[in-house]
Amino acid sequence: MQRRFSLDVSAPLLRTQGYIDGRWVSAASVFPVLDPATGEEIARVSDCGPTEAKQAVDAAYRAFHSWKLRSAKDRSVVLRKWFDLLTLHKEDLARLITFECGKPLQESRGEIAYAASFLEWFSEEARRVYGDVVPSPARDRKILLLKQPTGVASIITPWNFPSAMITRKVGAALAAGCTVVVKPAEDTPLSALALAELAEQAGVPAGVFNVVPCSREKTPSVGQVLCTDPLVAKISFTGSTATGKILLKMAADTVKKASMELGGHAPFIVFDSADVEMAVSGAMNSKFRNSGQTCVCSNRFLVQSKIHDVFVEKLCRAMDAELVLGHGSEPSTTQGPLINNRAAEKVEAQISDAVSHMICTREETFGPLLPVIRFDTEEEALAVANASNVGLAGYFFSQDVSQIWRVAEALEVGMVGVNEGLLSTPEATFGGVKQSGLGREGSKYGVDEYLEVKYMCFGGLKP
Amino acid sequence: MQRRFSLDVSAPLLRTQGYIDGRWVSAASVFPVLDPATGEEIARVSDCGPTEAKQAVDAAYRAFHSWKLRSAKDRSVVLRKWFDLLTLHKEDLARLITFECGKPLQESRGEIAYAASFLEWFSEEARRVYGDVVPSPARDRKILLLKQPTGVASIITPWNFPSAMITRKVGAALAAGCTVVVKPAEDTPLSALALAELAEQAGVPAGVFNVVPCSREKTPSVGQVLCTDPLVAKISFTGSTATGKILLKMAADTVKKASMELGGHAPFIVFDSADVEMAVSGAMNSKFRNSGQTCVCSNRFLVQSKIHDVFVEKLCRAMDAELVLGHGSEPSTTQGPLINNRAAEKVEAQISDAVSHMICTREETFGPLLPVIRFDTEEEALAVANASNVGLAGYFFSQDVSQIWRVAEALEVGMVGVNEGLLSTPEATFGGVKQSGLGREGSKYGVDEYLEVKYMCFGGLKP
Amino acid sequence: MQRRFSLDVSAPLLRTQGYIDGRWVSAASVFPVLDPATGEEIARVSDCGPTEAKQAVDAAYRAFHSWKLRSAKDRSVVLRKWFDLLTLHKEDLARLITFECGKPLQESRGEIAYAASFLEWFSEEARRVYGDVVPSPARDRKILLLKQPTGVASIITPWNFPSAMITRKVGAALAAGCTVVVKPAEDTPLSALALAELAEQAGVPAGVFNVVPCSREKTPSVGQVLCTDPLVAKISFTGSTATGKILLKMAADTVKKASMELGGHAPFIVFDSADVEMAVSGAMNSKFRNSGQTCVCSNRFLVQSKIHDVFVEKLCRAMDAELVLGHGSEPSTTQGPLINNRAAEKVEAQISDAVSHMICTREETFGPLLPVIRFDTEEEALAVANASNVGLAGYFFSQDVSQIWRVAEALEVGMVGVNEGLLSTPEATFGGVKQSGLGREGSKYGVDEYLEVKYMCFGGLKP
Amino acid sequence: MQRRFSLDVSAPLLRTQGYIDGRWVSAASVFPVLDPATGEEIARVSDCGPTEAKQAVDAAYRAFHSWKLRSAKDRSVVLRKWFDLLTLHKEDLARLITFECGKPLQESRGEIAYAASFLEWFSEEARRVYGDVVPSPARDRKILLLKQPTGVASIITPWNFPSAMITRKVGAALAAGCTVVVKPAEDTPLSALALAELAEQAGVPAGVFNVVPCSREKTPSVGQVLCTDPLVAKISFTGSTATGKILLKMAADTVKKASMELGGHAPFIVFDSADVEMAVSGAMNSKFRNSGQTCVCSNRFLVQSKIHDVFVEKLCRAMDAELVLGHGSEPSTTQGPLINNRAAEKVEAQISDAVSHMICTREETFGPLLPVIRFDTEEEALAVANASNVGLAGYFFSQDVSQIWRVAEALEVGMVGVNEGLLSTPEATFGGVKQSGLGREGSKYGVDEYLEVKYMCFGGLKP
Repeated sequence: MQRRFSLDVSAPLLRTQGYIDGRWVSAASVFPVLDPATGEEIARVSDCGPTEAKQAVDAAYRAFHSWKLRSAKDRSVVLRKWFDLLTLHKEDLARLITFECGKPLQESRGEIAYAASFLEWFSEEARRVYGDVVPSPARDRKILLLKQPTGVASIITPWNFPSAMITRKVGAALAAGCTVVVKPAEDTPLSALALAELAEQAGVPAGVFNVVPCSREKTPSVGQVLCTDPLVAKISFTGSTATGKILLKMAADTVKKASMELGGHAPFIVFDSADVEMAVSGAMNSKFRNSGQTCVCSNRFLVQSKIHDVFVEKLCRAMDAELVLGHGSEPSTTQGPLINNRAAEKVEAQISDAVSHMICTREETFGPLLPVIRFDTEEEALAVANASNVGLAGYFFSQDVSQIWRVAEALEVGMVGVNEGLLSTPEATFGGVKQSGLGREGSKYGVDEYLEVKYMCFGGLKP
Repeated sequence: MQRRFSLDVSAPLLRTQGYIDGRWVSAASVFPVLDPATGEEIARVSDCGPTEAKQAVDAAYRAFHSWKLRSAKDRSVVLRKWFDLLTLHKEDLARLITFECGKPLQESRGEIAYAASFLEWFSEEARRVYGDVVPSPARDRKILLLKQPTGVASIITPWNFPSAMITRKVGAALAAGCTVVVKPAEDTPLSALALAELAEQAGVPAGVFNVVPCSREKTPSVGQVLCTDPLVAKISFTGSTATGKILLKMAADTVKKASMELGGHAPFIVFDSADVEMAVSGAMNSKFRNSGQTCVCSNRFLVQSKIHDVFVEKLCRAMDAELVLGHGSEPSTTQGPLINNRAAEKVEAQISDAVSHMICTREETFGPLLPVIRFDTEEEALAVANASNVGLAGYFFSQDVSQIWRVAEALEVGMVGVNEGLLSTPEATFGGVKQSGLGREGSKYGVDEYLEVKYMCFGGLKP
Repeated sequence: MQRRFSLDVSAPLLRTQGYIDGRWVSAASVFPVLDPATGEEIARVSDCGPTEAKQAVDAAYRAFHSWKLRSAKDRSVVLRKWFDLLTLHKEDLARLITFECGKPLQESRGEIAYAASFLEWFSEEARRVYGDVVPSPARDRKILLLKQPTGVASIITPWNFPSAMITRKVGAALAAGCTVVVKPAEDTPLSALALAELAEQAGVPAGVFNVVPCSREKTPSVGQVLCTDPLVAKISFTGSTATGKILLKMAADTVKKASMELGGHAPFIVFDSADVEMAVSGAMNSKFRNSGQTCVCSNRFLVQSKIHDVFVEKLCRAMDAELVLGHGSEPSTTQGPLINNRAAEKVEAQISDAVSHMICTREETFGPLLPVIRFDTEEEALAVANASNVGLAGYFFSQDVSQIWRVAEALEVGMVGVNEGLLSTPEATFGGVKQSGLGREGSKYGVDEYLEVKYMCFGGLKP
Repeated sequence: MQRRFSLDVSAPLLRTQGYIDGRWVSAASVFPVLDPATGEEIARVSDCGPTEAKQAVDAAYRAFHSWKLRSAKDRSVVLRKWFDLLTLHKEDLARLITFECGKPLQESRGEIAYAASFLEWFSEEARRVYGDVVPSPARDRKILLLKQPTGVASIITPWNFPSAMITRKVGAALAAGCTVVVKPAEDTPLSALALAELAEQAGVPAGVFNVVPCSREKTPSVGQVLCTDPLVAKISFTGSTATGKILLKMAADTVKKASMELGGHAPFIVFDSADVEMAVSGAMNSKFRNSGQTCVCSNRFLVQSKIHDVFVEKLCRAMDAELVLGHGSEPSTTQGPLINNRAAEKVEAQISDAVSHMICTREETFGPLLPVIRFDTEEEALAVANASNVGLAGYFFSQDVSQIWRVAEALEVGMVGVNEGLLSTPEATFGGVKQSGLGREGSKYGVDEYLEVKYMCFGGLKP
């Protein structure tokens, strides 16, 4: 890179302090945020520690007692206003993403639209948290099943979708009546803090939405507070399976509810009956978004014998024609940098290993590596695809209607793309099976993760 | 006790071996089952260890692949048949409970009816596991949200409801298409094994329902297998909060789904506006069922000043008049023994401590101790009631309609009895908040604990 | 027919009086029930008139006030018992159908299983009539949406499914808490009366289920009472569109709720991409069940050019091989008689007219006539298929997945068989669009037809 | 009235032509719109006849085929935009209501907020029209229950809520994918036309929303077209029971779906246990809104003996203190004029008759008359309250919790206010039982009125 790229975002959205109880809070030290494309520092952010985390939890707990009593309609209006503000500031917010996470600006704009869509969706869901009146076997009592918010939720989010992974969780939490403490990834705190600024403008009350940015060094101690403090009722995490397990253990001691969106290892299967152009296009979408750094990116390509050669040939041609490396802020770029050196080294190691152990067929890649495996029968493809202890997304291409239902049902994953390489939408569930996680985000089910069912036995009646 | 009591149950229902993959299996050793009322041994049961547990898990995993493919209607019919058999053999099954757990026969009969009711309920729920067709924002794709069974479920159950705690979980699991391995409490394996006998008669296929009885000594190693084996996708536990936390940590390493029904510390509040007769009757029901050995038994009685004296007086009179100690098989008995010596010692310790520290107001009692606390205002009562890190059931008596809604909503528990001391019914949810657990059993929500939502993006369509 | 066929059914099930308020009631006169295969009289049945109809309505209205107060669980148990009795007596009940309606015994047995399945389904649905607790915009009020039974329902049913058309409606009605007066078709009263006998045995209380059989002559006056009496809240009719309109007008004067399952004119489309064997098999099922006398029988066959000849050839071969005319009680029979002379004359007229006006492509046939039309494009087929003012069922055969979704959505019918010729099952909805009717039967929606939503604003609360 | 009142509304919102297929259309003649407070003409509006009605139906039918294919999200966005525009222009829209319908400006503003709230609600509901995936009893077929829009809906609305009665129906219809032809009441066409102007601004496509204003003279012929044209699939009417019956009969000939919100005769019961201040306040709200001209206004006051005198005294005092007659545009006015002379004459006749026949206790008043009846027992009150062939709203005041449930369940009405005199909110259902109507508006059920369930049997699969 020869010329300089500058993050040119309006001041109110470029926040560098923690946001606790409705106030911007400095910590004792700061940590740098780097542009992954250039390695240059773009900001210094307050490095919150366990003290700030505890303050945030306490604030969230206090705020919970009034936020939960606000009517669902009130909460809906606040979330809608927040949605409107994200939409209004989408260009600045997209630049923040591109500069701290590296993805091309076009994708960053897409992420902001996607992030905002969860605030819109959950502003609508808030009013639809229905309880039940259940027919009682006894005439002197009524059975009501009420839905109540779980309490304070700790939200721990990754760097690859610095904005959307927050709103997908927080939208649901706030709609339900919960309050939150967000710990964004150390690589990408700026997007989270910009969301806080807009939350405040939208009228989210003090203490309802808190952000505690911190460095890699402080992450364990902050995570400890967020997952063990008795005032926290719920944790929601998106990130690696390894980290997820640590958090689950921490949460166990106080029996917190946990939602986990962990790693995947998505198979991408092309059957002989597939429309090959559609399959190639799906492969490009599924593999190269965010340079392969999404948990639903295809990790293994399984291609049936008869279609194998033509698929590979066309795919290579598409890669040559469409992939352009560069800084995310340049219009032509389709492939930005990986997030940091460790990420790049991992991909390189998988490539070196490809001819010997093909570890990339077992380990998540999180980068633009595309291994292709040839297979003969559907059974074989399913066996390979399911031979994984994770199961987030899976994709397959087929025009055989029986096969479509068979394979869609048999794939051990939480999300199946049938003739599609991009799936995510707020109307649908997001989440995996096996060690890919617990719970579902988005959709009409997403808000359930932040609710408790309370059985109210309205009894002692004289019928 | 001077005269002898004999467990007189027809041979096919008095099973003493483990039940794995549709076969009755002996273990290397046996352990005794004692009548808690007399301390006499009533049976010797195969003491299954990790080997048997692993066999059961493997069998359940194999069976899962065919059971999940059976139609919901098929599974419904099998569960219904099982229900019919429980109803047919209710007298024998009740005697098993009374002899291994101690509760009066009348209560045991009630438990069998309650246990059977879950098989009936979930046989009906099986056919109602609806997925969703969601309006798609794109015309070339359909969004289907399918419901699929989670997989093998480990079911670990307590001695206080030796039959019902199994069916409440297993009914839901089997309805969903899951298969199970049940580890019954060491005190009460006979009821679980009788259920296995009837499951087989009902046509539950081999491997779908497995029971691995074991002694207190083997429990940790068996539990280890059930909570860590990679083939197990789900654990469901009812028991103490302390044990629940251990299991949660074990389950974390393979990110298993977990349902937890843990301890409670139920407040029982009598407001001045209460109907005092109703409150006394509710108190008797809520406190003395199974001699106070249920997780929803009232543990703390909070009585408002004006009604305090009359309530206490009438309650004492009711206790004098209604409580009769004895062997559970005697018709007059209302209070059987506590389950074992440790249980009795705990209650005695709480009594000794009552005048000094009132530890019984913070620690679960699980016995017929009834501490009464006087209070003045609703706020005060709520503060005391909610000052607990658990929240399973809560009860209050009031005829003030605003207060009823206020207190029902404010109590931090999963189940609220308004003018009622007994709540449980298959139509309603069972489960708690805070450290009382995760998930809900029974009701239209119970089967969700054994289901995954799979998003099928039916795409690539030419509209 | 040379040899005699005798209806040999056990006496308690061969009922010939009306059933009103739990009593068997004779009318002033009787009318004959004929075996349509032989024209012989098989029974004489009380010819109820407006007086008996009014008595039945009054009885149903009185019974409504206690039946609606029974718990859902109670009603469920009664319906289940009724289901058990239908299953127990299935052979006798099937013979009744064959002798009064003519269909082959194998189909009659199928109808009884189908009829019984609705009692089972709705016995389960009864307990699942859930109301809603809706988030209130105001803190001082709770919004509850209760479900309550509509009231007395008049049930008017056809001869082609003498048993199932009754249980599909009555199962839902009784589950909801409604009471009913059934007027069976004049050709087939015996099945309805046998259902009454079994209802009584099952414990359906007096007045809850009433049957008023009557002759063609008395039908208008009885129908008048059932559709206009102010005590009737709901009418449900299955029959011709022409009659349906008359009943709707009668019901209008008292604003009764109305469910209508009227005539259809099902298209059966075979696309070039179809599996031709599957299509032929579907055509046989869809056209010749009950000799073409069902409202979902295919009425028009549209076959795409390339597949036309092979389809027609194979279909003709299947018709030659599989269709056997005869008395329904003979095991070899697959095609029984049409219900009466008028029915036969209508089919003959359509045949005579086939070369000139093809009226059979516009008018419902209700007989074993199978007109085939050739088409070229999907648009053309859809235009023809939708050029009808009715829209009950439709069928098409295709292996093209985009076409499947396109055509399934575009067909203006209530039920679409994709690669299937037989659709009905209690889990799915039954009902049409356009002039084919109002409302849906079966499925989780069926019981809604007998329910009112009551908004209970539980207000004036002090939060 | 001495001084002049002038309707001072910005030109684009003061529309006087019909709105058909996205164009403003003049008719052959005009009819006057009068200010009911002064009798002065405030506008002349195109008097559409059957020709224009038919044009509108044709336009709606054409538009239906593209509107139904728009994604739910698209339709949602358009409805939201319409909502925003109503909110933006609320002051002008309120003035239109006050001048054509007479109600005080404060109430008109309330109506606009209420009218807009349905567009907001249904913009959200549009995306939540979920179909079902039903567990199939057969492995080779999938059961999908799709929801599809009914078709063209004729919407016929009353003068007492000139704006809200339109949006409550049209919001649901458009969300579902239906298109509409609206015939506003002859007294109040201006509000409907202003809605059309804003619909166009919001991007509602041509033909989706049509308005055909007409005079009282043309109403029958226009209604005839709207209720009988074969291209219309659905009618929705709010108005008198007498008119409703006529429309139902017209609709019967083409088996149209019908929603009917007809007259009520609301009982308002004050039990001895009531909070009398709350009851008086509820009575004022329930009786005098829109000068008693709403279908849910209390029509009969039943007051229990012990509370009777104090209630009546306090109520009289409240009436003296709070009711101020005047032109609706004057800030002090709480009671505007009745809609026209006929309305006033009817009230006067009921007053004259009060001492003799008390016809006001049986016939809807629609004016500020408040008859009070004393009763002794709950049974007596319920008997009187339910002795009506209509059942829209009902109100009662009680602090006895058993009585609250008993009476709420026993009242034969569609909406019950417990300790509340005003109920309506978009989250709850609106609609009655008996001759008060068919179907429900608002709430999660409102959109069902414009949907058909289509059973798609996705069969012929090779599992």
